[in-house]
Amino acid sequence: MSNFEASLHHGAEPLIIDLPNVMLSSAERPKVEPFSDHHNDLAGTLKFACQMVGRGVHDRRSAFHTPVLATQSPSGPEARVLVLRAFDLPTRTLTFHTDTRSAKLLQLQADNRVALTFYDAARKTQLRMNGTAHLHINDAVSQQRFKGSRPSSLRCFLGAQPGSASPVASSGLPAGLEGREHEWAELQAAEANFAVLNVCVHQLEWLHLHTAGQRRALFVWADKTNDSKCAMQWLNP
Amino acid sequence: MSNFEASLHHGAEPLIIDLPNVMLSSAERPKVEPFSDHHNDLAGTLKFACQMVGRGVHDRRSAFHTPVLATQSPSGPEARVLVLRAFDLPTRTLTFHTDTRSAKLLQLQADNRVALTFYDAARKTQLRMNGTAHLHINDAVSQQRFKGSRPSSLRCFLGAQPGSASPVASSGLPAGLEGREHEWAELQAAEANFAVLNVCVHQLEWLHLHTAGQRRALFVWADKTNDSKCAMQWLNP
Repeated sequence: MSNFEASLHHGAEPLIIDLPNVMLSSAERPKVEPFSDHHNDLAGTLKFACQMVGRGVHDRRSAFHTPVLATQSPSGPEARVLVLRAFDLPTRTLTFHTDTRSAKLLQLQADNRVALTFYDAARKTQLRMNGTAHLHINDAVSQQRFKGSRPSSLRCFLGAQPGSASPVASSGLPAGLEGREHEWAELQAAEANFAVLNVCVHQLEWLHLHTAGQRRALFVWADKTNDSKCAMQWLNP
Repeated sequence: MSNFEASLHHGAEPLIIDLPNVMLSSAERPKVEPFSDHHNDLAGTLKFACQMVGRGVHDRRSAFHTPVLATQSPSGPEARVLVLRAFDLPTRTLTFHTDTRSAKLLQLQADNRVALTFYDAARKTQLRMNGTAHLHINDAVSQQRFKGSRPSSLRCFLGAQPGSASPVASSGLPAGLEGREHEWAELQAAEANFAVLNVCVHQLEWLHLHTAGQRRALFVWADKTNDSKCAMQWLNP
């Protein structure tokens, strides 16, 4: 067993978001990428993975902008795409927005264990994360994120309950709200339906498919609330 | 409630895989697509969804080629990307390949309820499916699919147990197997590790994000093994 522990002092090391080779448009991407420097380096792999997640927050064209969140429910697993809103590296926390009336909120309140799956098909790179969800409803965290969001991404919280039946094809929004910009005054009613979902990650698995040799690596934080220790090891893909 | 039942006789209607507007390269895709004809038509939405899944089987560049499969486990949900290998519309069955030694096989044997999530970011279209998994190990189904696969997609089944620890960065494959074509004789040992995972879908949810009005629809098959009846309804997004 190659399982070993290593200290990673993320807090002391600023996250480098700017990755020139991640900024290539799909048309510019080479079909098969050369092996990266970190390909045989566990700490480098973790750093690169975190950089890709950081880029997923800020670059809407990034495949990592829209991971899949899986939850458990009495009737089986549920999984859906969410937009990644923020990533705090020192606390390994990913932030999403959700509707207080959504089915996933009830699922998370009953069982806050989640899996997150990121996949960049062009880079043939998958990140799987396991973590615990923490909901913020009508508190300082949700209020701050609501105020910091663009009106266009808050409009949906003015609509009918997500997932409720509609007699006709509908956006669920009140008449007159679509296809235009919004004033903050119009969005006040949205705040009651706005929740912040923070996921604290305690396990991360990296998979890189490559014709010259696939790579898979596992990173586990023993302390679920503190980033001081990370156990890293290679896995057979 | 707009829930109503409608008969869909998929068996009598061949699946049309060829969708000109799905074949646009990413560079050619319009930034915001016009509303489709099926946008206010439940049966048309279902048909289009199935066409996108069918295309996902055959087009490796399609985002629907690599859905996320979520399972439940005693330690929480797990979710990973799988390659979609086949789609049989009359039985609503999606086919994947997996390793008999993988963690997901054990999870599926303990609880065969699964969720599948497809997301095409360029089309802003998500399909969520719920279904039951059926495994084929060393039977006529697995033997037929093994023989029908390309050697390059079977090589991985010659490797070490997926997810097992490796002392060094490794593809998990025996030396000399990488970076070249393979003879069938070399692949014989792979068959013992090769399993077919069929997922029979009994619920499908469509979500299309569009600035001019989002659309969400639910399709439920009351009989989990027969495609004769489908309950279709619009949901608020």
